[in-house]
Amino acid sequence: MKTCWLDERIAYDGSQLRAHWILAKTGLAGDAAVAFRGPCGVTDTEMADLEDLGGPGIAADDMVHLIWECFSTTDLWLAVHRQRLLSAQAAEVIRHLQSDVVVVRDGDDLYVGKGKLSISIATVSPVSTLWHFAVNASPGGAPVATATLEQIGVEPREFGERLLRRIADEQDSMTIARAKVRAKGEWGA
Amino acid sequence: MKTCWLDERIAYDGSQLRAHWILAKTGLAGDAAVAFRGPCGVTDTEMADLEDLGGPGIAADDMVHLIWECFSTTDLWLAVHRQRLLSAQAAEVIRHLQSDVVVVRDGDDLYVGKGKLSISIATVSPVSTLWHFAVNASPGGAPVATATLEQIGVEPREFGERLLRRIADEQDSMTIARAKVRAKGEWGA
Amino acid sequence: MKTCWLDERIAYDGSQLRAHWILAKTGLAGDAAVAFRGPCGVTDTEMADLEDLGGPGIAADDMVHLIWECFSTTDLWLAVHRQRLLSAQAAEVIRHLQSDVVVVRDGDDLYVGKGKLSISIATVSPVSTLWHFAVNASPGGAPVATATLEQIGVEPREFGERLLRRIADEQDSMTIARAKVRAKGEWGA
Amino acid sequence: MKTCWLDERIAYDGSQLRAHWILAKTGLAGDAAVAFRGPCGVTDTEMADLEDLGGPGIAADDMVHLIWECFSTTDLWLAVHRQRLLSAQAAEVIRHLQSDVVVVRDGDDLYVGKGKLSISIATVSPVSTLWHFAVNASPGGAPVATATLEQIGVEPREFGERLLRRIADEQDSMTIARAKVRAKGEWGA
Amino acid sequence: MKTCWLDERIAYDGSQLRAHWILAKTGLAGDAAVAFRGPCGVTDTEMADLEDLGGPGIAADDMVHLIWECFSTTDLWLAVHRQRLLSAQAAEVIRHLQSDVVVVRDGDDLYVGKGKLSISIATVSPVSTLWHFAVNASPGGAPVATATLEQIGVEPREFGERLLRRIADEQDSMTIARAKVRAKGEWGA
Amino acid sequence: MKTCWLDERIAYDGSQLRAHWILAKTGLAGDAAVAFRGPCGVTDTEMADLEDLGGPGIAADDMVHLIWECFSTTDLWLAVHRQRLLSAQAAEVIRHLQSDVVVVRDGDDLYVGKGKLSISIATVSPVSTLWHFAVNASPGGAPVATATLEQIGVEPREFGERLLRRIADEQDSMTIARAKVRAKGEWGA
Repeated sequence: MKTCWLDERIAYDGSQLRAHWILAKTGLAGDAAVAFRGPCGVTDTEMADLEDLGGPGIAADDMVHLIWECFSTTDLWLAVHRQRLLSAQAAEVIRHLQSDVVVVRDGDDLYVGKGKLSISIATVSPVSTLWHFAVNASPGGAPVATATLEQIGVEPREFGERLLRRIADEQDSMTIARAKVRAKGEWGA
Repeated sequence: MKTCWLDERIAYDGSQLRAHWILAKTGLAGDAAVAFRGPCGVTDTEMADLEDLGGPGIAADDMVHLIWECFSTTDLWLAVHRQRLLSAQAAEVIRHLQSDVVVVRDGDDLYVGKGKLSISIATVSPVSTLWHFAVNASPGGAPVATATLEQIGVEPREFGERLLRRIADEQDSMTIARAKVRAKGEWGA
Repeated sequence: MKTCWLDERIAYDGSQLRAHWILAKTGLAGDAAVAFRGPCGVTDTEMADLEDLGGPGIAADDMVHLIWECFSTTDLWLAVHRQRLLSAQAAEVIRHLQSDVVVVRDGDDLYVGKGKLSISIATVSPVSTLWHFAVNASPGGAPVATATLEQIGVEPREFGERLLRRIADEQDSMTIARAKVRAKGEWGA
Repeated sequence: MKTCWLDERIAYDGSQLRAHWILAKTGLAGDAAVAFRGPCGVTDTEMADLEDLGGPGIAADDMVHLIWECFSTTDLWLAVHRQRLLSAQAAEVIRHLQSDVVVVRDGDDLYVGKGKLSISIATVSPVSTLWHFAVNASPGGAPVATATLEQIGVEPREFGERLLRRIADEQDSMTIARAKVRAKGEWGA
Repeated sequence: MKTCWLDERIAYDGSQLRAHWILAKTGLAGDAAVAFRGPCGVTDTEMADLEDLGGPGIAADDMVHLIWECFSTTDLWLAVHRQRLLSAQAAEVIRHLQSDVVVVRDGDDLYVGKGKLSISIATVSPVSTLWHFAVNASPGGAPVATATLEQIGVEPREFGERLLRRIADEQDSMTIARAKVRAKGEWGA
Repeated sequence: MKTCWLDERIAYDGSQLRAHWILAKTGLAGDAAVAFRGPCGVTDTEMADLEDLGGPGIAADDMVHLIWECFSTTDLWLAVHRQRLLSAQAAEVIRHLQSDVVVVRDGDDLYVGKGKLSISIATVSPVSTLWHFAVNASPGGAPVATATLEQIGVEPREFGERLLRRIADEQDSMTIARAKVRAKGEWGA
């Protein structure tokens, strides 16, 4: 799995969560995740989570975005598991950087106090699984009460780069773990 | 998914991590998780993780054990993802019960300081996926430096029951989340 | 699996056989089936069965429709099996309500004498499997010789509600059955 | 899919429900079903359905047995669907041969009045899915109240051969049906 | 699997690589491959391989085209394996027809000397896997240095018909081979 | 995917074709292939291909063996495709080393003239897919007419190392190729 921090500011509008967007943007072919900074404003037609349709909207002025595409499966069930794990990983990265901050995971969202720190979605394309995960970098532009990396003293790019490394490392460690497991049979046999 | 706390003390030796053990023990049919308290001593022939073969051994005098069997898939890759998420969930339950304790997840293990709090494995049977996750309740009997629930002031049964509820609730919430996701297409199309 | 009888008359034109239509119409999230009464007139662009393209058309003035969406798989092969079983279940419900009626299943269609009683299709979306099954309630509007529930003395809503319950119950019973099966090995072993 | 009626009487004890038994017995390679007549007495170690362990036993003096092995999938969920469909197909064959007999399917079992006509199991091997379906030919030897083909005037071999043809034909027709189905998209898109 | 040589000259522009094109063109339902002769000019919107976008283009005046659709899986990973095998099979057919010609496979392309003999792609639709494989019959129209069947003395239709038979035969032989394989366990067990 | 040439001579008896054998032998964890030189004598209980049971036996005094284990799937159908491709790859390696030798692939076997050069099997374990492919290095010990690397002037170790590299490289190139493919839709849509 390849990862890359993109220095360019990119305005995330949902159209980036698309098969081969990473390939077209960066030339990285194969399972890959990229992260970048930029505003967020997802249009209705690009909303992958129907829960959000007709809601307050998905918007913020300044976020750290992570987009991940994986071609080895199109299984949405696996993708949803990985999305939850991704949220847990993001919380762990924050705790590592600021050990006194209390970050709580609720499903695929992270909260600091009552402020919503992150947004997230997992979806599928005909040839891949796709994730978008983003945390607020600095305040402004969101339709709900938010928390931000600025408020908890976490540097946005450092967070983004560490999260990229974290998910790549854990994918590797899961691949090795899977290869060391014996199957188990039936009782009485 | 059904869950049940078993009052009986059960000595976990690895043979419980077997297709239909929960059914035979409790009569619960279908995806189910049970938790119980008891010592741990896994024999070599029952070790599912080859990493552990020839190591210091898997043993402790007093643990809270969780055994989970799921029949809807035999995919070990999904099972390994769920195992990681399960470890994250266990850490979250502990933080919820004792907000001042620092629990760190390293792969599928939990640590409090340098003490190893948990052991864990995911495996497959011909008809199901299986997980064992256990945390030390009180000290003694382990071949490595451990941390225990006693030491961090967490009541074993409360931990077990909350973890059972936590994983069942999150499976439900993932099932709903999956059913609200739209697929995404290709760029330029 | 959730089920619901919809009192509203809905004109089925094929566009209802779509990912998340049940969610949008009823708010039911997750695997679900709904039934309702209404006319039928499937446009060419909405025909999922290519067998029907260029044929006499799919139309009737008054049918009981069942729409079912399942998110746990996108496997069309499984969906086709369930479609056949669904037709068998519908025949069984009719026999239960009118034990003297002879209903014959031919593939995924039901016949009473030479009259075609039902239409049916199974298909997939990028995130789910989908079924439409409908039986003629009263005569009129069909391009082929039909049989109707009226003719065999079956009350349409009772049929619809019983069929919903029947398929939900059998899904449950299959889930339990699967969880009680041991795998079998190889001869000589 | 190949089918064959075996003239030899074979005592079914459960060991026949095994990967490659049909190949070893008949030389038929690939997806295949065979049927034969013989007594039934399944030993505990060969019971695939845990529901039956510790029950009255699975036994009868004279049955028509069908064994089916399919190598194109090891998915137990699909196998359970096919098992239900198989029971429905068997009932349909009986109705075709004796239109005045009332056969009722309850899950994977067939009943004539209060008499149990059939037994059935679906299971998996590491390389295939396997089914056993059998109906009582003449009375005797069963631990529960049974119905028999003799009692309803159905000739055992004719039943066996027709059922073999029926399942092979329907597999073919499902294969063709699957290949004529268009996928459906999302609403609003 | 059905195969058919189409006598009609068809200009391949990429739109033929589509779910159910073979069914619409020929009436063949189910897994099928067809071959025909004609020019090639793939438009950008029809390019399935993103590698080709913005490249010299995919064009030639006279090719033998093979289109294959398979409904039993939508797994792109399997499809890519079969694409490589298809290229190897095409080279074997050529060697069989002209034993003194040196054809070299490089991934999914065939070369004679420095001339590119073939083009190829594997892709998926929502209901099937699809392949296009084509070799130059006579020179002209290509944006890169090519080799042709004419140059190596292979008759185009004979090549096309033999390749169709070759892939159908090998699919059959693989189906049989799969059904004769025993699973293997774990060491020490 | 990791590869390794083992200098040790190993007598292949079929027990090496087992889940985690490579891990236990070499410490390589994850998808891996190893090759080595040694005699071959497969016992009946270790024969994975039932075709070989009761045949002339699988034996030779001196072969180059390749064993490959892959944990990312347990799909035997994919494994059989890869086995055929593996045979084609082996032939290509030989042609590259000795361009004047005529090697013919027949299914998963290679022939030089009437001499059988290779043996091969693909199988599954509960957690992986497994392949054994071997070619005769020097004559002797085989129950059928063979060809050998010695006879065609190919150095055994060079063949083994090149084949290892070849399959690893092609797996990589297929992974990249898969990630550059767009899905294709339906005609008329």
